[in-house]
Formats: sequence, C-alpha cells, structure tokens
Amino acid sequence: MPDPRFFKVQGPFSAKELAKIGEANLVRNDCGNKKFSDVKTLVEANVEDVSFLHNSSYLEQFKKSNAGLCVLHPLQKKNAPKSMVLLLTERPYVAYAKIAQAFYPVDEPNGLIAETAFIDKTSRVGGLTSIGAGVVIKENVQIGSRCKIDENVIIGAGVKIGDDCRIGVSASVYFSLIGSRVVLYAGVRLGEAGFGFAASSGQFVTLPQLGRVIVGDDVEIGANTTVDRGSGSDTVIGNRCRIDNLVQIAHNVTLGEGCILVSQSGIAGSTKVGNHVVIGGQAAIAGHLSIGDKVKIGGQSGILKDIPPGEQYGGSPGVPIREWLRQAVILGRMAKKRK
Amino acid sequence: MPDPRFFKVQGPFSAKELAKIGEANLVRNDCGNKKFSDVKTLVEANVEDVSFLHNSSYLEQFKKSNAGLCVLHPLQKKNAPKSMVLLLTERPYVAYAKIAQAFYPVDEPNGLIAETAFIDKTSRVGGLTSIGAGVVIKENVQIGSRCKIDENVIIGAGVKIGDDCRIGVSASVYFSLIGSRVVLYAGVRLGEAGFGFAASSGQFVTLPQLGRVIVGDDVEIGANTTVDRGSGSDTVIGNRCRIDNLVQIAHNVTLGEGCILVSQSGIAGSTKVGNHVVIGGQAAIAGHLSIGDKVKIGGQSGILKDIPPGEQYGGSPGVPIREWLRQAVILGRMAKKRK
Amino acid sequence: MPDPRFFKVQGPFSAKELAKIGEANLVRNDCGNKKFSDVKTLVEANVEDVSFLHNSSYLEQFKKSNAGLCVLHPLQKKNAPKSMVLLLTERPYVAYAKIAQAFYPVDEPNGLIAETAFIDKTSRVGGLTSIGAGVVIKENVQIGSRCKIDENVIIGAGVKIGDDCRIGVSASVYFSLIGSRVVLYAGVRLGEAGFGFAASSGQFVTLPQLGRVIVGDDVEIGANTTVDRGSGSDTVIGNRCRIDNLVQIAHNVTLGEGCILVSQSGIAGSTKVGNHVVIGGQAAIAGHLSIGDKVKIGGQSGILKDIPPGEQYGGSPGVPIREWLRQAVILGRMAKKRK
Repeated sequence: MPDPRFFKVQGPFSAKELAKIGEANLVRNDCGNKKFSDVKTLVEANVEDVSFLHNSSYLEQFKKSNAGLCVLHPLQKKNAPKSMVLLLTERPYVAYAKIAQAFYPVDEPNGLIAETAFIDKTSRVGGLTSIGAGVVIKENVQIGSRCKIDENVIIGAGVKIGDDCRIGVSASVYFSLIGSRVVLYAGVRLGEAGFGFAASSGQFVTLPQLGRVIVGDDVEIGANTTVDRGSGSDTVIGNRCRIDNLVQIAHNVTLGEGCILVSQSGIAGSTKVGNHVVIGGQAAIAGHLSIGDKVKIGGQSGILKDIPPGEQYGGSPGVPIREWLRQAVILGRMAKKRK
Repeated sequence: MPDPRFFKVQGPFSAKELAKIGEANLVRNDCGNKKFSDVKTLVEANVEDVSFLHNSSYLEQFKKSNAGLCVLHPLQKKNAPKSMVLLLTERPYVAYAKIAQAFYPVDEPNGLIAETAFIDKTSRVGGLTSIGAGVVIKENVQIGSRCKIDENVIIGAGVKIGDDCRIGVSASVYFSLIGSRVVLYAGVRLGEAGFGFAASSGQFVTLPQLGRVIVGDDVEIGANTTVDRGSGSDTVIGNRCRIDNLVQIAHNVTLGEGCILVSQSGIAGSTKVGNHVVIGGQAAIAGHLSIGDKVKIGGQSGILKDIPPGEQYGGSPGVPIREWLRQAVILGRMAKKRK
Repeated sequence: MPDPRFFKVQGPFSAKELAKIGEANLVRNDCGNKKFSDVKTLVEANVEDVSFLHNSSYLEQFKKSNAGLCVLHPLQKKNAPKSMVLLLTERPYVAYAKIAQAFYPVDEPNGLIAETAFIDKTSRVGGLTSIGAGVVIKENVQIGSRCKIDENVIIGAGVKIGDDCRIGVSASVYFSLIGSRVVLYAGVRLGEAGFGFAASSGQFVTLPQLGRVIVGDDVEIGANTTVDRGSGSDTVIGNRCRIDNLVQIAHNVTLGEGCILVSQSGIAGSTKVGNHVVIGGQAAIAGHLSIGDKVKIGGQSGILKDIPPGEQYGGSPGVPIREWLRQAVILGRMAKKRK
C-alpha cells in the first residue's frame, strides 16, 4: 500500500529475519525462509505482505485478511486464517513497529547544505548534517552530526542541538538546549517568550523571560506546537517525551521522562509533571501544580489540583476518573427522567 | 467600507445584473438599471451600496439601514426601509456571497515564478501558476494550472496538486494528493507523520507512517491547522470540506463530503466521519469511531462513542443534545437551591 | 541563572537605583549603595542577586532564600531572612518586572536589512528598523522606526505597522493596520480570510472577506495564534491586549483595551469583548455575543450568552462562577454516594 511516489521499500525479508527484527516467535519454522516484501493493513495485505493485529476491534478484518505474515498476541493465534504465517509476541505493536522500520527506514541525512542556507561563521555543524534552503543559523549555535534541518528553519543564537535530530520545515528554535535523536515537526515554536507580565492599574509590564527550554534525548514534538522558554528557571521536556500537534507548554513547565501529550492539550506555567504521565487530547492543567508519576488524564479534562502518582483523572474540573464516570451516569439518568 | 489599500472593487453593477448574479428576484423592475458600486454592512452602506440581511439579530440595523439595495428573505420584505431596492431569495446569504464575489473577485494568478523559488527539475508546474519567493518544490511534484503558491511554502517530493489551488504562506505539504480548487491557508501542516508509536517498557518505538493525505476538490483548510498523513491507510478529506483554523486531524481520519470543522476542534486517529457533518469549535472526537452523515456536534463536545446519522450531540462526554441541555438545566436548578 | 549564552546582563545596580527603577521602598537605607548584579529565582539567588516574592505558594522558598535583595509586599516583610535587603511595594511583581527589564533590556534593533530580504520599491521602512533574511514586504507597506522584522516574515500589500514593533519569525501579516510597540510572536497568522461561506444545497459559496485587522498600541500576540480579518467590518484588537499562544480570534471580533486571552482560547465571529476582560485557557466564546468590561471567564468555559460587566463565569455551558463551583460540589457529592 505505501505509495511508491512517497515511500521506498527495503527488503524483502524472510520470516526468520522478521522474527529476529521484531523479537517475536515464528510459529511454523518450516516457513522461515519464506520472503515478504512489504507491510500493509489487514484489509490491503496480500500473501507477500506483513500485517499486524493489536486491537481487538480489528478482529473481523484479521479473520478475513490475506496477509502472508501477521504479528499478533499469542491469545489471538486461534483466530488466524490457516495459511497465514504467524509471529507471536506479547507486544505485537512494538514488534510490528520495528519490522515496519526495517522495510521503511528513515532517510539518512546526506550532509548537503543548501546554497540559500545561512550559517553564522561562529556556529558549528556536525558531520553529515543536512541543512535545507532558507535556513538561518545564528551566532554560536552547535548542531551535532547526522541531523536534518529542513527548509526555512530558524535557529537562534546560542542554541545547542545533539546528534541525529530532525527539525521540520519552518520550525523555530530559540534559547534551547536539545538532546540527541530529537524530532521537531514542522512549525514548532520552541523558546518563544512566555506569557509573563505584571499588571499595574490597567497597564501590563512585561517580565523578561530569562530561562531556557531544555529538551532531553529521544523527544518528539508535534507540528505547530508551542513550548515557551522559562521565565527564570527553565522549561524542561524529559527524555522520551512524545508531544502531539498544537500542544501548548507554558514557561517553567517541567515534564518528566516518557510523558505522552495528545494533541491540543495545554499545560500552564510552572506545573511539574512526573514521569510516564499521559495527558489526553484537549486536556488542560492549571499552573503551579504537581502531577505525580504515571498519572493518566482524560481528554478535555481540566486539572485544577495536584494529582498523586498513579491516579487517573477526568472531567472539568478534574476528579478521579471513576467519580467522573459516575457523574456522567448520574447526570444522564436525571436528564432522562421527565422534567 | 472595503479599504482600497487592500481591496480593489469591480463594477458598478445594475440591480438587474445583481439579481442575475445572486439568482434572486428584483422586487421593483423599474429599478433594474440603477447601478450599485460596492458591498457594505447594513450600518455602513449608503444609497449606492449593496448589503444583506440573513440573521434576524441584525433586524434593527436593517430597518435603519441606508443601503441602496439589500438581499433578503421574502419574509423580511415587510421590514425594509421604503426607498431600498430589494432582492428576494430563500437563501440571502448565498446570493449575497455571489454578489460580493462579483464586486471583489479573487486575484488571478499571474504565472510569475519568484527568482528565489526553487523548483526541482523533475517537477512540473502548470500554466499561469505563480510561485512566491522562498518556495521550495522538491522532486517529482505535479502542480496544476492557475495555482497560487505563496511565499516560503514547502512542497515535498511526489506531491500532486490540481488546478486553481492556493497555498498560503509558510504552509507545508508532504505525502499528499490534492484535488482542484483547494485552498490551504498560511501555516497549514499537511502530511506530517502521525502520533504513532508502540510503547515497550518505558521506551517508545515509532511506527513508520506510510499513508498519505488525500484531499478532494473544493476543500479549504484554515491557518495553522494540522492534518497528519495516514499510518498505513490514508487520511482523507472529502470534497467541499471546510476546515477552520488550528484544527487537528489525526492519521487515518476520513472526512466525507461537505463537512464543516470549526476552529480548534480535533479528531483522533482512524475515526470515520460521514458526509455533511458539522463539528463545533473546540469539540473533540475520540479515535476509531464512526460518525454518521449529517451529524451535528456542539462546540467543546467530547465524543466517545459512535453517532448514528442525523443526530445532534453535545457535552463532554457527548450525549444527544436534548439530553445535554436537560443536564445543564437540572444542574443549574440544583446549584441555585441553597446548599 | 540566566544563561550567558542567551542573555547578556546589564548592571550592576545599587539597592537605591533598584528602588527607583521598581518604584519601591528600600527598608534599610544603610544598604542603599550595596550593588546587585543579576535577577534569579528564590532558590537560585545568592547574596549578589535580586529576587522577588509575589505568590504565597513560594513562601517557604522565600524563607530559605539566599537572595541579597528581594522585592515583596509589606505584609511579607515579617517572613524575610534577616540579612536580606528588602524592597517593599504593593505590587512586587510589577516592581520586579521593571527591575528585570533594567538588567535584561530588549535588544535594540540595529537597522540591518538582510541581503535576502525583499522589500517592494513602493514600500517604506522607518529608521533603525531591521529586516531579517527571507522576509518579503509587498507593495505599499509602511513600517515605522526601530521595528524588528524577523526571518521569513511575510507582510502583505498595504499593511501599516507603527514604531517599535517586533514581528517573530515566519509570522504573516495581511490586510492589517498595526499600532506601535506591538509584538507578534513566531508563526502568528494575522489577516487570513475568516471562516465565511454560505451553504446552498450541499455546496458552499465563499463570502469575500473584505475587512481588516486593526491592532492597537502595546499589543502582544502569541506564537501560532490566528487572527482572521473582518468579513466586512473589521476585527479589532484594542490597546494593550495580551494574547497567548495558539489562540483563535475569528472575523469581526472586537476586543476592548487591556484584555488577557490565555492559550488555546477561542472567540467566534462578531463577538464584542469589552475592556480588561480575562479569558482563561481553552475557553471558548460563541459568536455574535457581547461580553462586558472586566468580565473574567474561567479556563475551558464555553460561553453561549452575553455576559454583563464585572461578572465571573465558568463551566460549559458557562454560568456565573459561584453557580459553576456549586454544580461541581453537588455532582461530586452525588457521585460519591453509593450507586
């Protein structure tokens, strides 16, 4: 299915190779040398293709799928079509992701620097890093090796970027120190001044925003998302955070490691978020709060209080999720009664 | 009122010509040759101007308006000032829109290609298409005729764009096949990788996003809106969809024809939206759902379940709108009681 | 704390000078000549640094702070460490902001015009205004003195910008008249066509958007925020409004003076907002409403009706805030009861 105008497939790979790449168990060893040439959805896959089942809502598609090889959980083995080669794993989605990466590896940066790119003479760019047209890299910037800086990106003075990073078109990065293997999608705004001012009899006095944005390793930040720099201390995005499109992260927010922020969510200033926190789409967290490790916040929730580790919250104002679900049930019952 | 620094008026047009353009009925034929020279709001219009009434909340302004000609519904005829020339139609807003387009047609593309634009030699650009400064068009792109590609737009390899399209400044288009008469506003991000990864003991493995964005004909997509490409199947925007600013459309979403998505709404991955669905501002639809034809979803709603065709939903979590309104009434009553 | 790679400090300043800059009272005059060299957070400040206390949630940090000088409210004097020099004022945040501006003044524009910037020969740019690489300034634009137009900004034909303005990278400005001392952050979209069309049997007819965006003096508009131009009358942003990131302001909205719009909030078409209105994050206001002076709207609220001056609203649908808080309490109680 991947359109060859956009994607160039690698391979083919044998079932045995795919089992190794995906760290999964091949059910029938006699199929080990059978070769597969692409990854496709259950509906579109044919006998030469690899597909996967990780969500039971696709079970009916799976039962009828013509995929030659499928990655799935051992519990689903019983539902597989007879002729399908099976790779079993407790984490079929992870295994499939690794296999798909083998078929469709990310483009290697080629080290080309576009003629219309501007790199200040005080700045350093590592080996194999490619720089697109219209890029401007200001004074004293350090960019690591094998990065890909796409067209029209602006990198402000003093910014540091690690190795193997990718900065999408028209993104801007100011006042930031960025780790390695970080991906910023198109239109990201990193390091703009936060929303900081003091009110005085109808006038506003801007508070100089003197902090930075510190981004760990293996972070991804989605398209048109905004991450303001700190006002005094820093705004911090921990290692392995995954942030979706159109998210707002205000000044001085700190995210721990491995947090997931779904699209259009927002975190107000100075809130501290722990590790492995999941924040649903369009959820908001007020400022100056503390959100514990492994907290899960439902979509559109509005969190106004600290949340202890491990809790799940929902609703606006946010409450423990079971309470929120009961609220919805009670409201629903009342509304269904006459009058 | 249109400021001549920004807008160049055409015309004048006679009442008879305007009736034809707007497909409306001229009340007094003896006025057919009277000429009108501009369109203005009810408050600002004078005797040589055209205005319209389509929303009864402007009725008082209408009664006092000095507009020389007004487009309105036959039922409002009785409220018209005596000297006003009237064009009657069941759809005054549509008629007015067509008349206003006659006075203020969209600028014709002039076929100019800016010196600083880069077009890869493998790409083709149709006749009369204009290309602004700083534009980059990568390999194997096809762009139709009479398009207008504004400054600093980036078009990724393999992208296809039909005729009479307009791409606003700093927008980016990757992995996309786009129909004709499509308008992307400034800062649109089309075809970025979706928010797709598999979690594995605190690590995330990115799932290659191998689908495309398919955009039908006559679609408009608002400023800074993000539409991610599919993960395997495609993200699809049907013909005549109108999408406002700052909207998020996740991977694999499909929109039918003629949907309206108001600003800051968001649709999570793999949800299928029917034809002529209206989604209010800041509303959210969870992933993997099915939304029927002609569904209307209120602003700030949070839809967590499939919705059958023709229903109206509101609230978060979303319920049928009458139920939501009753919930609000009941809650309001309870809150007004002491304690 | 401010990282010298990003920020260049001025000073030092004596306690007496700082008291004058901050319009605050120096508690011990014998310290008037003591010099201070930087501003830092309470936790990070040392004896040579200035810090401030304006929010009692930082009281414990204040008590333990090693800051040499601190700006605070007279009521907090009793909690100060003994060796700290104190500047007392009713508005410690305002005083601190002014002091911080003295240590870290905004960069002066240097009047440089990048070689790759394009300025149409019919346009005029005032003295000392600097223009970044890749900027395009179209026909008949007027830009005042001492402005800073950052890289890849596009200014449409006829636009007028006052003195001492700053336009962030990749922002675009069309059909707009902008006052002085205005700051647009990166990626702002000013003056795109509003979401205006007439529906006719499944087709949409675009209504030409013939108004402008009028921006007063001392306005700030956050990153990736969108402000559509009017459809006939204008979209108006009053003097001293402060608008955060990712906000949507639809066509014909008028904001009075000194309004504060927090991130991801949105205002639908033709709504009139008074002076000194505060709109919380992710709040939405429906179209064609009137919001009185000094109204405060809570985060995530959904306002569907006019609000008289001075009221505070919350909830979706929005109600007076005390009612909303009672609703939350009542719902909470009901949900906690068994069943």
